[in-house]
Amino acid sequence: MADQAVVDLFGLIAYGELTAFERLATDARMAPTLADKIALAAMAAAEFAHFEAISRALVGRGVQPEVAMAPFIGPLTDFHALTAPADWLESLVKAYVGDSIAADFYRAIAHRLDDDARALVLDVLADTGHAAFVVDRVRAAIAANPVVAGRLALWARRLVGEALNQAQQVAVERDALTGLLVGVGDLKTVAAIFDGIMKAHSERMAALGLSA
Amino acid sequence: MADQAVVDLFGLIAYGELTAFERLATDARMAPTLADKIALAAMAAAEFAHFEAISRALVGRGVQPEVAMAPFIGPLTDFHALTAPADWLESLVKAYVGDSIAADFYRAIAHRLDDDARALVLDVLADTGHAAFVVDRVRAAIAANPVVAGRLALWARRLVGEALNQAQQVAVERDALTGLLVGVGDLKTVAAIFDGIMKAHSERMAALGLSA
Repeated sequence: MADQAVVDLFGLIAYGELTAFERLATDARMAPTLADKIALAAMAAAEFAHFEAISRALVGRGVQPEVAMAPFIGPLTDFHALTAPADWLESLVKAYVGDSIAADFYRAIAHRLDDDARALVLDVLADTGHAAFVVDRVRAAIAANPVVAGRLALWARRLVGEALNQAQQVAVERDALTGLLVGVGDLKTVAAIFDGIMKAHSERMAALGLSA
Repeated sequence: MADQAVVDLFGLIAYGELTAFERLATDARMAPTLADKIALAAMAAAEFAHFEAISRALVGRGVQPEVAMAPFIGPLTDFHALTAPADWLESLVKAYVGDSIAADFYRAIAHRLDDDARALVLDVLADTGHAAFVVDRVRAAIAANPVVAGRLALWARRLVGEALNQAQQVAVERDALTGLLVGVGDLKTVAAIFDGIMKAHSERMAALGLSA
Protein backbone atom coordinates (compact mmCIF):
# COMPACT_ATOMS: atom_id res chain seq x y z
CA MET A 1 0.00 0.00 0.00
CA ALA A 2 1.43 3.32 -1.10
CA ASP A 3 2.16 6.00 1.48
CA GLN A 4 0.30 8.53 -0.64
CA ALA A 5 -2.94 6.71 0.15
CA VAL A 6 -2.43 7.24 3.89
CA VAL A 7 -1.53 10.88 3.34
CA ASP A 8 -4.62 11.35 1.16
CA LEU A 9 -6.96 9.64 3.60
CA PHE A 10 -5.50 11.56 6.56
CA GLY A 11 -5.74 14.83 4.61
CA LEU A 12 -9.34 14.13 3.64
CA ILE A 13 -10.38 13.17 7.18
CA ALA A 14 -8.46 16.11 8.69
CA TYR A 15 -10.15 18.67 6.47
CA GLY A 16 -13.46 16.90 7.03
CA GLU A 17 -13.00 17.25 10.80
CA LEU A 18 -12.00 20.90 10.46
CA THR A 19 -15.08 21.75 8.40
CA ALA A 20 -17.23 19.67 10.76
CA PHE A 21 -15.88 21.78 13.60
CA GLU A 22 -16.70 25.00 11.77
CA ARG A 23 -20.13 23.81 10.77
CA LEU A 24 -21.14 22.53 14.21
CA ALA A 25 -19.77 25.63 15.93
CA THR A 26 -21.65 27.88 13.51
CA ASP A 27 -24.85 25.84 13.70
CA ALA A 28 -24.68 26.07 17.50
CA ARG A 29 -25.90 29.64 17.00
CA MET A 30 -29.21 28.26 15.71
CA ALA A 31 -29.71 26.12 18.82
CA PRO A 32 -33.14 26.68 20.37
CA THR A 33 -31.86 26.30 23.96
CA LEU A 34 -28.64 26.98 25.82
CA ALA A 35 -28.30 23.24 26.61
CA ASP A 36 -28.55 22.41 22.88
CA LYS A 37 -26.00 25.10 22.07
CA ILE A 38 -23.57 23.63 24.61
CA ALA A 39 -24.14 20.10 23.27
CA LEU A 40 -23.33 21.19 19.72
CA ALA A 41 -20.32 23.22 20.84
CA ALA A 42 -19.01 20.14 22.70
CA MET A 43 -19.30 18.07 19.52
CA ALA A 44 -17.48 20.80 17.60
CA ALA A 45 -14.66 20.85 20.15
CA ALA A 46 -14.40 17.03 19.89
CA GLU A 47 -14.10 17.30 16.10
CA PHE A 48 -11.30 19.81 16.51
CA ALA A 49 -9.45 17.47 18.88
CA HIS A 50 -9.73 14.79 16.18
CA PHE A 51 -8.42 17.21 13.59
CA GLU A 52 -5.43 17.89 15.82
CA ALA A 53 -4.75 14.17 16.29
CA ILE A 54 -4.70 13.59 12.53
CA SER A 55 -2.56 16.68 12.00
CA ARG A 56 -0.02 15.42 14.52
CA ALA A 57 0.04 12.04 12.78
CA LEU A 58 0.69 13.73 9.43
CA VAL A 59 3.52 15.78 10.91
CA GLY A 60 4.86 12.55 12.47
CA ARG A 61 5.00 11.09 8.96
CA GLY A 62 6.84 14.14 7.68
CA VAL A 63 3.87 15.68 5.88
CA GLN A 64 2.56 19.22 6.30
CA PRO A 65 -1.15 18.94 7.21
CA GLU A 66 -1.98 21.90 4.92
CA VAL A 67 -0.39 20.08 1.98
CA ALA A 68 -2.25 16.85 2.72
CA MET A 69 -5.57 18.68 3.06
CA ALA A 70 -5.19 20.87 -0.03
CA PRO A 71 -6.73 18.47 -2.62
CA PHE A 72 -9.89 18.08 -0.55
CA ILE A 73 -10.65 21.72 0.22
CA GLY A 74 -12.52 22.24 -3.07
CA PRO A 75 -14.82 19.20 -2.89
CA LEU A 76 -15.63 19.68 0.81
CA THR A 77 -16.23 23.41 0.38
CA ASP A 78 -18.55 22.68 -2.55
CA PHE A 79 -20.39 20.03 -0.58
CA HIS A 80 -21.04 22.37 2.34
CA ALA A 81 -21.97 25.29 0.08
CA LEU A 82 -24.54 23.07 -1.68
CA THR A 83 -25.95 21.71 1.57
CA ALA A 84 -26.17 24.71 3.88
CA PRO A 85 -28.84 23.86 6.48
CA ALA A 86 -31.82 26.22 6.50
CA ASP A 87 -32.63 25.60 10.15
CA TRP A 88 -31.68 23.79 13.32
CA LEU A 89 -33.26 20.44 12.40
CA GLU A 90 -31.59 20.37 8.99
CA SER A 91 -28.25 21.07 10.65
CA LEU A 92 -28.79 18.21 13.12
CA VAL A 93 -29.70 15.76 10.36
CA LYS A 94 -26.70 16.86 8.34
CA ALA A 95 -24.34 16.47 11.30
CA TYR A 96 -25.59 12.96 11.98
CA VAL A 97 -26.47 11.51 8.56
CA GLY A 98 -23.67 13.16 6.59
CA ASP A 99 -20.86 12.59 9.08
CA SER A 100 -21.93 8.99 9.68
CA ILE A 101 -21.85 8.08 6.00
CA ALA A 102 -18.41 9.66 5.64
CA ALA A 103 -17.20 7.86 8.76
CA ASP A 104 -18.52 4.49 7.53
CA PHE A 105 -16.73 5.01 4.26
CA TYR A 106 -13.43 5.98 5.91
CA ARG A 107 -13.69 2.99 8.25
CA ALA A 108 -14.27 0.64 5.34
CA ILE A 109 -11.17 1.73 3.47
CA ALA A 110 -9.06 2.05 6.65
CA HIS A 111 -8.83 -1.74 6.78
CA ARG A 112 -6.13 -1.55 4.13
CA LEU A 113 -3.94 0.87 6.10
CA ASP A 114 -1.00 -0.01 8.35
CA ASP A 115 -1.88 -0.76 12.00
CA ASP A 116 -1.01 2.69 13.39
CA ALA A 117 -2.89 4.53 10.68
CA ARG A 118 -5.92 2.28 11.00
CA ALA A 119 -6.05 2.64 14.80
CA LEU A 120 -5.90 6.42 14.49
CA VAL A 121 -8.65 6.57 11.86
CA LEU A 122 -10.95 4.34 13.92
CA ASP A 123 -10.22 6.45 16.98
CA VAL A 124 -10.97 9.86 15.45
CA LEU A 125 -14.11 8.52 13.77
CA ALA A 126 -15.57 7.37 17.10
CA ASP A 127 -18.99 8.92 17.70
CA THR A 128 -18.66 12.32 19.38
CA GLY A 129 -22.16 12.16 20.80
CA HIS A 130 -23.98 13.11 17.61
CA ALA A 131 -26.08 9.97 17.46
CA ALA A 132 -28.03 9.94 20.70
CA PHE A 133 -28.43 13.72 20.78
CA VAL A 134 -29.65 14.08 17.20
CA VAL A 135 -31.99 11.07 17.34
CA ASP A 136 -33.57 12.47 20.49
CA ARG A 137 -34.07 15.98 19.09
CA VAL A 138 -35.29 14.93 15.64
CA ARG A 139 -37.77 12.37 17.00
CA ALA A 140 -39.13 14.97 19.42
CA ALA A 141 -39.56 17.48 16.57
CA ILE A 142 -41.41 14.91 14.44
CA ALA A 143 -43.62 13.94 17.38
CA ALA A 144 -44.52 17.61 17.84
CA ASN A 145 -45.13 18.17 14.13
CA PRO A 146 -45.27 15.05 11.90
CA VAL A 147 -45.05 17.17 8.71
CA VAL A 148 -41.38 17.75 9.55
CA ALA A 149 -40.54 14.11 8.72
CA GLY A 150 -41.18 14.47 4.97
CA ARG A 151 -39.06 17.57 4.65
CA LEU A 152 -36.15 16.08 6.62
CA ALA A 153 -36.28 12.82 4.63
CA LEU A 154 -35.94 14.83 1.40
CA TRP A 155 -33.12 16.80 2.96
CA ALA A 156 -31.25 13.61 3.90
CA ARG A 157 -31.62 12.32 0.33
CA ARG A 158 -30.17 15.54 -1.00
CA LEU A 159 -27.23 15.26 1.43
CA VAL A 160 -26.46 11.73 0.27
CA GLY A 161 -26.71 12.73 -3.39
CA GLU A 162 -24.36 15.68 -3.02
CA ALA A 163 -21.92 13.62 -0.94
CA LEU A 164 -21.79 10.97 -3.67
CA ASN A 165 -21.23 13.66 -6.32
CA GLN A 166 -18.26 15.06 -4.44
CA ALA A 167 -16.90 11.60 -3.57
CA GLN A 168 -16.97 10.69 -7.25
CA GLN A 169 -14.94 13.75 -8.14
CA VAL A 170 -12.39 12.97 -5.43
CA ALA A 171 -12.18 9.38 -6.65
CA VAL A 172 -11.43 10.51 -10.20
CA GLU A 173 -8.65 12.85 -9.13
CA ARG A 174 -6.96 10.92 -6.32
CA ASP A 175 -5.70 7.62 -7.65
CA ALA A 176 -3.98 6.60 -4.42
CA LEU A 177 -7.15 7.08 -2.40
CA THR A 178 -9.23 5.25 -4.97
CA GLY A 179 -6.63 2.49 -4.79
CA LEU A 180 -7.50 1.99 -1.13
CA LEU A 181 -11.09 1.38 -2.16
CA VAL A 182 -10.65 -0.86 -5.14
CA GLY A 183 -7.88 -2.74 -3.36
CA VAL A 184 -7.07 -5.73 -5.59
CA GLY A 185 -9.59 -4.53 -8.14
CA ASP A 186 -12.39 -6.81 -6.96
CA LEU A 187 -15.59 -4.97 -7.88
CA LYS A 188 -17.70 -7.32 -5.75
CA THR A 189 -15.86 -6.17 -2.62
CA VAL A 190 -16.40 -2.53 -3.55
CA ALA A 191 -20.08 -3.16 -4.16
CA ALA A 192 -20.35 -4.91 -0.79
CA ILE A 193 -18.77 -1.89 0.94
CA PHE A 194 -21.31 0.46 -0.63
CA ASP A 195 -24.16 -1.92 0.20
CA GLY A 196 -23.03 -1.97 3.83
CA ILE A 197 -22.80 1.82 3.97
CA MET A 198 -26.27 2.30 2.47
CA LYS A 199 -27.74 -0.30 4.82
CA ALA A 200 -26.29 1.49 7.86
CA HIS A 201 -27.64 4.76 6.43
CA SER A 202 -31.16 3.28 6.15
CA GLU A 203 -30.96 2.10 9.74
CA ARG A 204 -29.97 5.60 10.90
CA MET A 205 -32.84 7.13 8.94
CA ALA A 206 -35.23 4.66 10.58
CA ALA A 207 -33.83 5.55 14.02
CA LEU A 208 -34.57 9.20 13.24
CA GLY A 209 -38.11 8.32 12.22
CA LEU A 210 -37.42 9.18 8.55
CA SER A 211 -37.98 7.08 5.44
CA ALA A 212 -34.71 6.50 3.58
CA MET B 1 -17.78 37.01 50.69
CA ALA B 2 -21.18 35.79 49.53
CA ASP B 3 -21.43 32.63 47.50
CA GLN B 4 -23.67 34.41 45.01
CA ALA B 5 -20.69 36.50 43.94
CA VAL B 6 -18.72 33.38 42.96
CA VAL B 7 -21.73 31.95 41.13
CA ASP B 8 -22.22 35.24 39.29
CA LEU B 9 -18.57 35.58 38.32
CA PHE B 10 -18.40 31.94 37.19
CA GLY B 11 -21.63 32.33 35.24
CA LEU B 12 -20.39 35.50 33.57
CA ILE B 13 -17.02 34.01 32.67
CA ALA B 14 -18.62 30.74 31.50
CA TYR B 15 -21.02 32.49 29.15
CA GLY B 16 -18.20 34.77 28.03
CA GLU B 17 -16.08 31.73 27.13
CA LEU B 18 -19.00 30.08 25.34
CA THR B 19 -19.66 33.16 23.21
CA ALA B 20 -15.91 33.57 22.62
CA PHE B 21 -15.89 30.01 21.34
CA GLU B 22 -18.81 30.68 18.98
CA ARG B 23 -17.34 33.94 17.77
CA LEU B 24 -13.83 32.61 17.13
CA ALA B 25 -15.18 29.50 15.43
CA THR B 26 -17.44 31.59 13.22
CA ASP B 27 -14.74 34.16 12.47
CA ALA B 28 -12.42 31.31 11.46
CA ARG B 29 -14.50 31.21 8.27
CA MET B 30 -13.15 34.66 7.37
CA ALA B 31 -9.54 33.52 7.75
CA PRO B 32 -7.47 34.39 4.67
CA THR B 33 -5.36 31.21 4.89
CA LEU B 34 -5.85 27.65 6.08
CA ALA B 35 -3.13 28.16 8.72
CA ASP B 36 -4.99 31.22 10.08
CA LYS B 37 -8.23 29.26 10.10
CA ILE B 38 -6.60 26.48 12.10
CA ALA B 39 -5.06 28.97 14.54
CA LEU B 40 -8.43 30.59 15.22
CA ALA B 41 -10.17 27.22 15.53
CA ALA B 42 -7.54 26.15 18.08
CA MET B 43 -8.24 29.28 20.14
CA ALA B 44 -11.96 28.55 19.93
CA ALA B 45 -11.44 24.98 21.14
CA ALA B 46 -9.32 26.30 24.04
CA GLU B 47 -12.13 28.68 25.02
CA PHE B 48 -14.57 25.79 25.02
CA ALA B 49 -12.28 23.76 27.30
CA HIS B 50 -12.29 26.75 29.67
CA PHE B 51 -16.05 26.92 29.49
CA GLU B 52 -16.22 23.24 30.45
CA ALA B 53 -13.84 23.75 33.40
CA ILE B 54 -16.00 26.57 34.80
CA SER B 55 -19.17 24.55 34.18
CA ARG B 56 -17.73 21.61 36.13
CA ALA B 57 -16.80 23.95 38.98
CA LEU B 58 -20.35 25.33 39.08
CA VAL B 59 -21.80 21.81 39.15
CA GLY B 60 -19.29 20.99 41.91
CA ARG B 61 -20.75 23.87 43.94
CA GLY B 62 -24.26 22.55 43.34
CA VAL B 63 -25.21 25.15 40.73
CA GLN B 64 -26.62 24.46 37.27
CA PRO B 65 -24.34 26.24 34.75
CA GLU B 66 -27.37 27.36 32.72
CA VAL B 67 -28.84 29.04 35.80
CA ALA B 68 -25.58 30.80 36.64
CA MET B 69 -25.15 32.02 33.05
CA ALA B 70 -28.74 33.19 32.55
CA PRO B 71 -28.35 36.78 33.87
CA PHE B 72 -25.45 37.45 31.50
CA ILE B 73 -26.90 36.15 28.24
CA GLY B 74 -28.66 39.42 27.48
CA PRO B 75 -25.71 41.80 28.03
CA LEU B 76 -23.21 39.55 26.21
CA THR B 77 -25.59 38.94 23.30
CA ASP B 78 -26.16 42.70 23.02
CA PHE B 79 -22.43 43.37 23.14
CA HIS B 80 -21.69 40.94 20.33
CA ALA B 81 -24.64 42.09 18.24
CA LEU B 82 -23.41 45.69 18.52
CA THR B 83 -19.80 44.77 17.72
CA ALA B 84 -20.05 42.25 14.87
CA PRO B 85 -16.70 42.40 13.03
CA ALA B 86 -16.97 43.45 9.38
CA ASP B 87 -13.82 41.59 8.37
CA TRP B 88 -10.96 39.39 9.44
CA LEU B 89 -8.83 42.17 10.98
CA GLU B 90 -11.73 43.55 13.01
CA SER B 91 -12.42 40.06 14.32
CA LEU B 92 -8.76 39.65 15.34
CA VAL B 93 -8.71 42.99 17.16
CA LYS B 94 -11.96 42.16 18.89
CA ALA B 95 -10.68 38.73 19.99
CA TYR B 96 -7.53 40.24 21.44
CA VAL B 97 -8.55 43.67 22.75
CA GLY B 98 -12.03 42.73 23.94
CA ASP B 99 -11.16 39.45 25.59
CA SER B 100 -8.06 40.92 27.25
CA ILE B 101 -9.98 43.75 28.87
CA ALA B 102 -12.61 41.33 30.15
CA ALA B 103 -9.88 38.99 31.43
CA ASP B 104 -8.06 41.82 33.23
CA PHE B 105 -11.29 42.84 34.88
CA TYR B 106 -12.14 39.28 36.00
CA ARG B 107 -8.61 38.81 37.32
CA ALA B 108 -8.83 42.02 39.31
CA ILE B 109 -12.02 41.02 41.09
CA ALA B 110 -10.96 37.36 41.46
CA HIS B 111 -8.60 38.42 44.26
CA ARG B 112 -11.59 38.53 46.58
CA LEU B 113 -12.66 34.93 45.86
CA ASP B 114 -11.80 31.82 47.88
CA ASP B 115 -8.54 30.07 46.90
CA ASP B 116 -10.11 27.37 44.69
CA ALA B 117 -12.31 29.81 42.83
CA ARG B 118 -9.47 32.27 42.30
CA ALA B 119 -7.10 29.57 41.01
CA LEU B 120 -9.73 28.39 38.53
CA VAL B 121 -10.47 31.91 37.28
CA LEU B 122 -6.77 32.67 36.76
CA ASP B 123 -6.33 29.34 35.00
CA VAL B 124 -9.18 29.72 32.50
CA LEU B 125 -8.20 33.32 31.77
CA ALA B 126 -4.68 32.29 30.76
CA ASP B 127 -3.87 33.47 27.24
CA THR B 128 -5.01 30.92 24.65
CA GLY B 129 -2.54 32.17 22.06
CA HIS B 130 -4.53 35.21 21.00
CA ALA B 131 -1.83 37.70 21.83
CA ALA B 132 1.15 36.66 19.72
CA PHE B 133 -0.99 35.56 16.78
CA VAL B 134 -3.12 38.71 16.64
CA VAL B 135 -0.20 41.11 17.15
CA ASP B 136 1.66 39.41 14.32
CA ARG B 137 -1.27 39.49 11.87
CA VAL B 138 -2.41 43.04 12.68
CA ARG B 139 1.11 44.50 12.47
CA ALA B 140 1.64 42.79 9.12
CA ALA B 141 -1.65 44.20 7.82
CA ILE B 142 -0.71 47.72 8.92
CA ALA B 143 2.74 47.38 7.38
CA ALA B 144 1.11 46.37 4.09
CA ASN B 145 -1.46 49.16 4.23
CA PRO B 146 -0.94 51.87 6.91
CA VAL B 147 -4.47 53.26 6.37
CA VAL B 148 -5.78 50.18 8.19
CA ALA B 149 -4.39 51.48 11.51
CA GLY B 150 -6.85 54.36 11.77
CA ARG B 151 -9.87 52.22 11.08
CA LEU B 152 -8.79 49.54 13.58
CA ALA B 153 -8.03 52.12 16.28
CA LEU B 154 -11.57 53.49 15.93
CA TRP B 155 -12.91 49.95 16.01
CA ALA B 156 -11.05 49.21 19.26
CA ARG B 157 -12.46 52.39 20.82
CA ARG B 158 -15.96 51.31 19.87
CA LEU B 159 -15.35 47.87 21.42
CA VAL B 160 -14.23 49.41 24.70
CA GLY B 161 -17.18 51.79 24.73
CA GLU B 162 -19.75 49.05 24.16
CA ALA B 163 -18.05 46.79 26.69
CA LEU B 164 -18.26 49.52 29.34
CA ASN B 165 -21.95 50.10 28.51
CA GLN B 166 -22.78 46.45 29.03
CA ALA B 167 -20.58 46.18 32.13
CA GLN B 168 -22.43 49.11 33.67
CA GLN B 169 -25.76 47.40 33.10
CA VAL B 170 -24.49 44.18 34.66
CA ALA B 171 -23.15 46.15 37.63
CA VAL B 172 -26.53 47.78 38.23
CA GLU B 173 -28.40 44.47 38.16
CA ARG B 174 -26.00 42.11 39.92
CA ASP B 175 -25.33 43.38 43.42
CA ALA B 176 -23.23 40.39 44.47
CA LEU B 177 -20.92 40.78 41.52
CA THR B 178 -20.62 44.52 42.06
CA GLY B 179 -19.85 43.70 45.70
CA LEU B 180 -16.74 41.86 44.53
CA LEU B 181 -15.59 45.02 42.84
CA VAL B 182 -16.37 47.61 45.46
CA GLY B 183 -15.14 45.27 48.18
CA VAL B 184 -15.10 47.36 51.37
CA GLY B 185 -16.54 50.31 49.50
CA ASP B 186 -13.21 51.99 48.90
CA LEU B 187 -13.67 54.00 45.70
CA LYS B 188 -9.95 54.63 45.41
CA THR B 189 -9.29 50.90 45.04
CA VAL B 190 -11.97 50.65 42.36
CA ALA B 191 -10.48 53.59 40.51
CA ALA B 192 -7.03 52.01 40.72
CA ILE B 193 -8.40 48.79 39.20
CA PHE B 194 -9.87 50.66 36.25
CA ASP B 195 -6.68 52.67 35.83
CA GLY B 196 -4.69 49.44 35.70
CA ILE B 197 -7.05 47.91 33.15
CA MET B 198 -6.95 50.96 30.88
CA LYS B 199 -3.17 51.12 31.14
CA ALA B 200 -2.85 47.47 30.07
CA HIS B 201 -5.28 48.21 27.24
CA SER B 202 -3.12 51.10 26.02
CA GLU B 203 -0.07 48.85 26.08
CA ARG B 204 -1.87 46.24 23.97
CA MET B 205 -2.99 48.88 21.49
CA ALA B 206 0.62 50.07 21.21
CA ALA B 207 1.78 46.47 20.65
CA LEU B 208 -0.72 46.23 17.78
CA GLY B 209 0.59 49.48 16.31
CA LEU B 210 -2.66 51.32 17.10
CA SER B 211 -3.19 54.57 18.99
CA ALA B 212 -5.40 54.02 22.05
